[in-house]
Order: sequence, then structure tokens, then C-alpha cells
Amino acid sequence: MKEERVLLAHGGGGTMMHNLVGETILGKLGNPILNALGDSAVLEFGDRRIAFTTDSFVVQPLFFKGGDIGKLSVCGTVNDLAMAGARPLFLSLGFIVEEGLEGEILERILESIRAAAEEAEVRVVTGDTKVVEKGKADGIYINTSGVGEIRPGVSIAAENAKPGDAVLINGNMGDHGIAVISEREGLSFETEICSDCAPLNHLASRILDVCDEVHCFRDPTRGGVAATLNAIAGQAKVRIELFEKDLPVSPGARGACDLLGFDPLYVPNEGKMLVICPEERAETVLNEMRSDGYGRDSAIIGRVTEEGEGVVLLHTRIGGMRIVDMPYGEQLPRIC
Amino acid sequence: MKEERVLLAHGGGGTMMHNLVGETILGKLGNPILNALGDSAVLEFGDRRIAFTTDSFVVQPLFFKGGDIGKLSVCGTVNDLAMAGARPLFLSLGFIVEEGLEGEILERILESIRAAAEEAEVRVVTGDTKVVEKGKADGIYINTSGVGEIRPGVSIAAENAKPGDAVLINGNMGDHGIAVISEREGLSFETEICSDCAPLNHLASRILDVCDEVHCFRDPTRGGVAATLNAIAGQAKVRIELFEKDLPVSPGARGACDLLGFDPLYVPNEGKMLVICPEERAETVLNEMRSDGYGRDSAIIGRVTEEGEGVVLLHTRIGGMRIVDMPYGEQLPRIC
Repeated sequence: MKEERVLLAHGGGGTMMHNLVGETILGKLGNPILNALGDSAVLEFGDRRIAFTTDSFVVQPLFFKGGDIGKLSVCGTVNDLAMAGARPLFLSLGFIVEEGLEGEILERILESIRAAAEEAEVRVVTGDTKVVEKGKADGIYINTSGVGEIRPGVSIAAENAKPGDAVLINGNMGDHGIAVISEREGLSFETEICSDCAPLNHLASRILDVCDEVHCFRDPTRGGVAATLNAIAGQAKVRIELFEKDLPVSPGARGACDLLGFDPLYVPNEGKMLVICPEERAETVLNEMRSDGYGRDSAIIGRVTEEGEGVVLLHTRIGGMRIVDMPYGEQLPRIC
Repeated sequence: MKEERVLLAHGGGGTMMHNLVGETILGKLGNPILNALGDSAVLEFGDRRIAFTTDSFVVQPLFFKGGDIGKLSVCGTVNDLAMAGARPLFLSLGFIVEEGLEGEILERILESIRAAAEEAEVRVVTGDTKVVEKGKADGIYINTSGVGEIRPGVSIAAENAKPGDAVLINGNMGDHGIAVISEREGLSFETEICSDCAPLNHLASRILDVCDEVHCFRDPTRGGVAATLNAIAGQAKVRIELFEKDLPVSPGARGACDLLGFDPLYVPNEGKMLVICPEERAETVLNEMRSDGYGRDSAIIGRVTEEGEGVVLLHTRIGGMRIVDMPYGEQLPRIC
């Protein structure tokens, strides 16, 4: 680690986190599966392939418009499995509870977990509960890990993005981050902004049904679309070009971002997925996405143009072009 | 939940935790796999069986004699897989780090994780890192989840314990709890007491090699041997009788327990396993256990005597008999 101490920014999904993970953690624990740094690990198991993933949730506040830590903890892990082309099957559930948490809050969170798991058609099959003293957590932290089965024949990985591919997204950027920050800071906007938190496994499955050439799925959570596309561009060693006019942002989130000084490209999402597939299949995929409840505002937002140094560029509305950098540290802490 | 708020005691491995899990959590999320409440979930996957488990580690202090939170987080999950008769294969690693943690401490923990994973022959294949503000955690919390493959033909479950079975343990009780509490409270004893924290998968595998009739493996962590045997007795609806003279306790731990007012039966372990198998196989199993580095002090400590209400009884040294209760709340918080 370059820094002497861990900073909030090390958890932000940007360059500092990539350095911490890439150097300090992989330096000790690296192996070919972990080094892939996908949303899920891909594991050979007999003649089948398993996806395995983990995520801890520390969102503050616990409840926000459109979701809560319980729904988030199911959707986050379900989506990481779906992004590997897997059908989510089993979840684990690890609670770290702060002494004094109201029983009623725990019950509401459990109900959200139940409802989200039912929608995603996954089962919670194992769990663990720890309690720490008052002041040693922040209400409740939840870890979920997930196991899924990868579709036969599917090969999805950041490295697979290649020139000639289109980049799609299933709807508006930034709603989750804005919803959480609004709740936390007590902001209210003319239009109420709800988190997009949702399980995307059924949508991902529909896409694979109509297109057997998907190169990459990735959910743009911490660090937003900017961080996720930079990671893909870096791993695939390609240039990705985005078109500002095609980037979907709701008017509410746009207004809030203008007011708060955020760029929607960097605001976290919890119900969005990026799809990279050959350009000639993009219309078919787009139509399928738009016919799903979680894809009505889907759009083609860019393309992969050439091999070389991994970089993301934006064609601006006024005809210019600028680099979309990997964020460095932490813009919005604890949004998941 | 009966109580209005979550208490430290809800995390203690005793009756209060069993009520929280059994009523509040299973009430919402119950399904046949989760309801089994084994150390691992047992999942059918094609023609194979997977074990899947999760554990969060919140031990305080982070470092203690014989181990640290990193070693603990690998061994705990490896052991939960091994207790299902599985060969541990893959681990996930979820860090929740408090802002300000020294980089050097993180590196020491990573090194412990690496060494323990190497010994257990498991691979860390997926991970997640979150950072929370200073004062919102206690240095670092770690969740590990694990996936393993269950041996063909093996059927291990608490319910399988039956009259005519012997109960064995692989060595001295209570060392882990005493080591952690000593470190935390700054106590020192004449004999230095080290945590027994160890990966038990190789030992478990050796036992299965020599005995194909193991009915139950279980690691007596939170709540100690007393809580674990009560859980088994309750699930199998059998009476378990222990013999005080046969219970292995190191002189150091014995002295510390006397001083602190603890009963070693209730003190947590992190490198112990209980084995329940037919009495006629017990000697074979015992000899195999004693020939392993983590089983040199193994002993036969009791037997399953009759069906009925689940209860654990102790034949005392002086010829009496008493009930070994399920602990109610929390004797030693945050020892794992």
C-alpha cells in the first residue's frame, strides 16, 4: 500500500481501490481466478461451471427511496452472478449487527431480503449473525455471497470487448447514488428520485436468449459507468467511445447532479447493466432489453473502436471529445 | 423477536441466538436447506453435492496468541465446510475496513490469510472491500464464504446421531476463548495459553478415510462444546452423556477458567471438532485422530444413550450427574 493508512477513498471503486486490490491484496493472494477481477469468479466444477461472488453492504442510511440495505444485499450479489452469465441459485447471508438495533428494523430488512430473493428466484441457504457493541458498527452491515450456474457455451469477460462492439445500458444513470445521498443529506428535489436497485438476472437471461455473442456484461456500481468502462477498457486494452447525446439520465437526476456538482457518469447505480456485443447484434439486443421491465429506457451509448491503450472517450453534445477518466478516490461514500 | 432491540447476547451462540435465528430469521427466509442449520448448506448440483457456508469475523483484539482475525477467517469457514464432509475448494473474502486502519496491519492480516489458505489447500477466488468512517467499525471485520465438494456417499448431519454412538473430540477445550479474553483484558497466566485456531479439513478427511459411518461432525465454536452438543441433541432428539473425567482441558486453560469463573465446556474453540460415530468404530477413529498434528490429545468424551427429549448430561468426577444446559446469552463476546 502506498498510503500509510486505509482511507475512505480506498473503498470508492476508483484508482485508489484498484491499487489497493491490485497491489496489496493480489500481491498476497493472487491466483489466475482472483486476478481476473470479474464480478464473479468462474469455477470449473465437474462438467459444469459455477459463478461465485461476494459483496458486503454498508449503505448509510439503511432505508432510502426505492430500496434498503436488505434489497440491496440481495440484488447486488444476484447481479454480480448474472453479469458472469450465470443463473443465480444460492445466497449466503452474513449479518454484523450493532447492539441496540431495533428489532422492528431487522424485521423490515428481513422482509426486503425475502421479497428480493423471491423476485430473483434465489434461495438463502446459509447464514451467520454476529453482534458487536454499540458504536462498533452503524446499525447493520450485511454480506451476501452467491453461487450460480453459468450457462453452457457462454463466455463473458471484460477481456472479450473488441473493436466493432456496441456498448448498451438498460436505462438511466445515477438514480441510486442520488437517492441515497438525498436521503442522507436530507435533500429534496422537485422530482422524487428513487434508487434503481433491482435484480437483473431475468433481463440478463433474456439478452443471452436472443444473442449468443455477448462479449461482456458488467454492472456499473461504485464509481458509476465511468469507472466500470475504464476497467473494461483497461482489461481488454481497447478504446471505448461514448456519445453524450445518447447517455440516458432522468431529468430529476440530471437536475440533482447539476445542483450537487456530480457528473452522472460517475454516480453509482444498483439496477443497471452495461452490455457489450457485436454492433450488428445491438438492435436485436436493444429491442429485447426495452421489452423488459428493467430495460424500458435502454440505449446504445457507445462503441469499442480500436485496440491499444485502454481509454474511454466522450463525444460531447457540442462536437468536442474528452477523456472520461477513471475516478481517483471516493465521490459518494457508503452508497452500497 | 421477543426483545425490542438486538443485544450482544443475540450473537453468543446460546438460546437467545437460537431464538433469533430460529424464529425471526427462519420465520422470514426459511426453506428446507436453511432450516437444517448445519455448519454448511448441502446443495445438489448435477450429480455432485456442494457445501456452501458463510461466517463473519469480528474478533477483538485483531491479534492474539496463536492467531489473528485473518487466520480465524480462513479456518472458521474451512472448518464449517469440513464439518459437512466436504473438501474445501474456494473461498470468498469480504473486508469491511474502518478508515484509518494502518496499512501494515492489513498486510499482516493478508499474510495470515495467505498462510492459512495454503495450509488448508483452498483458494481465495473472489473478494470485496468496503471502507467505513472512523468509529463505524473496529479496525476490520472479515466475512469469508466457502464452497466445497462433499465426498460421494458421505451423509453427515446432526440428526444422524443415534443411541449407541460415541462422542469424540480432537483435543483440549477452551484454549481459543481463554487466549482471546487474556489478550483483550491484559491477563497473563503462568502457562501461556494459545488459541487452537487451525484448519481441520485434513483431519476430517483422514477420519472419513478410516470410517464410512461417521454420523456427525461439528465444530464447537461460540457457546463451546456445551452449546454444540445441545444443538445436536435437540436436532437428533437424543440424550448425550458426557464423562467429566474424560474431558480434555489443558492445565493452563483449567487454571484460567477456575480463576475467571468459566466452565471449559462453554468456552469457544476454533480448532476443535466433535465426532459422533458408532461406538464400535470409536477406537479406530480415535487412533487416526491421535496420529494427526491437530488431534494428538483426542479423547472419547461421551456417548449417545437414548432417544427422547434432546438433553446433555454430565457424569461428574464425584459420581453425580448434572444437566449441561444450552447457554442462554453471551459469556465471551467477540471471540470470533
